[in-house]
Amino acid sequence: MRAVDIIARKRDGRVLTRDEISFFVAGVTDGSWAEYQASSLLMAIVLRGMTPEETAWLTDAMVTSGIRVDHSRISGVKVDKHSTGGVGDKTSLILAPLVASCGLPVPMMSGRGLGHTGGTLDKLEAIPGFCVRLSLEEMTRALERVGCAMIGQTEHIAPADRRLYALRDVTGTIESIPLISASIMSKKIAAGINALVLDVKTGSGAFMKTEADSRRLAESLVSIGNASGVKTQALITDMDAPLGRAVGNSLEVIECIEAMRGAGPADLMEVTMALTVPMLIFGGVATTPEDARRKAQHAIDSGAALDRFQRIIETQGGDPGVVDDVSRLPRVERRHVITASRSGYLIRMDAELVGRASVVLGAGRDRVEDPVDPAVGIFVNAKPGAHVHAGDPLLELLYRDDARLERAAALATSAIMIGDEPPPPRPLILGEVR
Amino acid sequence: MRAVDIIARKRDGRVLTRDEISFFVAGVTDGSWAEYQASSLLMAIVLRGMTPEETAWLTDAMVTSGIRVDHSRISGVKVDKHSTGGVGDKTSLILAPLVASCGLPVPMMSGRGLGHTGGTLDKLEAIPGFCVRLSLEEMTRALERVGCAMIGQTEHIAPADRRLYALRDVTGTIESIPLISASIMSKKIAAGINALVLDVKTGSGAFMKTEADSRRLAESLVSIGNASGVKTQALITDMDAPLGRAVGNSLEVIECIEAMRGAGPADLMEVTMALTVPMLIFGGVATTPEDARRKAQHAIDSGAALDRFQRIIETQGGDPGVVDDVSRLPRVERRHVITASRSGYLIRMDAELVGRASVVLGAGRDRVEDPVDPAVGIFVNAKPGAHVHAGDPLLELLYRDDARLERAAALATSAIMIGDEPPPPRPLILGEVR
Repeated sequence: MRAVDIIARKRDGRVLTRDEISFFVAGVTDGSWAEYQASSLLMAIVLRGMTPEETAWLTDAMVTSGIRVDHSRISGVKVDKHSTGGVGDKTSLILAPLVASCGLPVPMMSGRGLGHTGGTLDKLEAIPGFCVRLSLEEMTRALERVGCAMIGQTEHIAPADRRLYALRDVTGTIESIPLISASIMSKKIAAGINALVLDVKTGSGAFMKTEADSRRLAESLVSIGNASGVKTQALITDMDAPLGRAVGNSLEVIECIEAMRGAGPADLMEVTMALTVPMLIFGGVATTPEDARRKAQHAIDSGAALDRFQRIIETQGGDPGVVDDVSRLPRVERRHVITASRSGYLIRMDAELVGRASVVLGAGRDRVEDPVDPAVGIFVNAKPGAHVHAGDPLLELLYRDDARLERAAALATSAIMIGDEPPPPRPLILGEVR
Repeated sequence: MRAVDIIARKRDGRVLTRDEISFFVAGVTDGSWAEYQASSLLMAIVLRGMTPEETAWLTDAMVTSGIRVDHSRISGVKVDKHSTGGVGDKTSLILAPLVASCGLPVPMMSGRGLGHTGGTLDKLEAIPGFCVRLSLEEMTRALERVGCAMIGQTEHIAPADRRLYALRDVTGTIESIPLISASIMSKKIAAGINALVLDVKTGSGAFMKTEADSRRLAESLVSIGNASGVKTQALITDMDAPLGRAVGNSLEVIECIEAMRGAGPADLMEVTMALTVPMLIFGGVATTPEDARRKAQHAIDSGAALDRFQRIIETQGGDPGVVDDVSRLPRVERRHVITASRSGYLIRMDAELVGRASVVLGAGRDRVEDPVDPAVGIFVNAKPGAHVHAGDPLLELLYRDDARLERAAALATSAIMIGDEPPPPRPLILGEVR
């Protein structure tokens, strides 16, 4: 079997065999495929596509490039949630402790922010001392102790995915539903979970800009998960506007703490609850959506979720005092307010542009190796549909650096559109794939 | 300008700008584009195509990656001929001295054999002492002395092409008319010629298997040449069966010497003459095809062409005695004859399979770095359409090594197909593009 022949077959629109796909993934993992051969095949896959079967084989080969974690020591249905990424998308920080407090083990493996989207790991690391780099043994201990571990991808999990993703990032080969699906699902399957709820974002701030693409991705993800023995369900949720009020790492941690106190913004709570419901049902601790919703609400109202969050922080080396005193989180004092230029209805609060403004402030990164500033960020004071008055503060930029502020303020201003008529209402939960 | 953005634009089917194409070629030349980025863009070009304008820009950028040879010291129209490659395709060795003997300077830059096709340089190197690695200064001296220089690509000519070709070879990105066109024409344009005749082969032994693809390639090549100020014309010629009788380096040199004595096989002479005619007309030494044909025939009949070949050999360090005594060329004594298994009409003498058999014997190479054996080869004693009797010797394999013979004989035997009815006649010259 030769790399060049496999590349040529995909170039010509043929379906690759399971062996050919395994040979490719093994070759990427052990370096016997040159990077220029891998990238050539990746581009052929982007343009020629893959059948659901090929995508499942690719995922499986990526899983077996590393270890598949064995959580059998931990009793209960291991559940996780994955989002395709958005702006202000902080649901993981709420639902992981919430679901754990309902009795389900949550071994959550998350990523970092890139481009205009934020990442769970960056948010957690805003908490002083919080360590997301747990070994598998430490992860198991955390699961035993607090029913939850929130960590980054370890080097043993789907190493082929790390290599392929790094290559795709610089070769214009990110945009492919089969490649995206295999990347997401290989990590989740290798992490040894039993059930997974996916939040496939759609809209300006999402990776998938259209609902049709989001649905195709959701279907691909769910089909791979179920074929691999992981109960999988996906929601398609709106990401045309930022989720919640806070965008930026410390700011989002604070918002999550408030949310677990029962004071979360309506949109954030709606999406969080919608994702929590199938997790609780998959885990067998709730029988119906109503039952699940009631249990989740109780976990918040009783303080169990927030208490669990505090114990997770403590277990992972973070300062548990932040829960009671959010001023212990990094912060900046400088604040720039962007006001409504006229009265009317807020037509758009563009998620991508708000996200990009927050990256310029330092809350996110354009390149994987860039550091993030945990303290800076943006408060979003109004959502599309709201009636605003000229001079109303629509966005508040918390910044460290004047030069960055100027560029960020311009981007943030361009995210706002005010009109005379209210925009058509857009539901937050656009669909479900199971 | 970022590589990844340019890749993404071509991936999405966009037309690249001249600046983007220049940036790519310069980046490949100086190494600022990673090979994995270059191969990803190459695959996107293979699958998305390039407009004629993009192809011309690509060619131009590849020309300017190196020097454009200045032949202004040499008077007369500098003409060259290029073939897309075939089996037994030795016309260059005849027409270069022939055209030079008609008074036109022929700075001919050729390649080596690869896969089942032979290469002019390998054939010339079968002549003891013949040196194809002339410097540009030596090339000029040879042109001044004998009106012809037959050399390989120097490192100063289109260095971007060498890098791109090496990458395409291992990344499944050879098969693209824009990329093939730019590769061929950049070298020819950089070589400083004024006129070019192209022999675009079509059929089993050719790179382009169908006449339609060959015509598209011919049109692309001619359009680039003319746009760059090089008078260019292409013939589409048959390569379903080997050309002439000899396949193999020494054997082909001998056949060319015989041809210049007036005893060449009819098919070889027909193609050689058809290519010589436009060269003489482009060069201004003939006014009509009939005039050109008469002058070319005279160059053969008078011995001027063969005499010129002898002087070219001498000028490039080869043994001029081979012209009068072909036994001075490397040879093997061992001969294996493949006979007709039945009586009937020869339906096929498959060029690709004969070429592959000759590679197995050692006359060609599968990898660029492999050596070739100048002595071995195959004589083709019958062409499609011939009536043969059971037991007639159809192919003669001149071999050095028993183990290689066995595999070569099997391949060569599979090239032969005999039937009851003669095959439909197929002209040698299938078309012309100017």
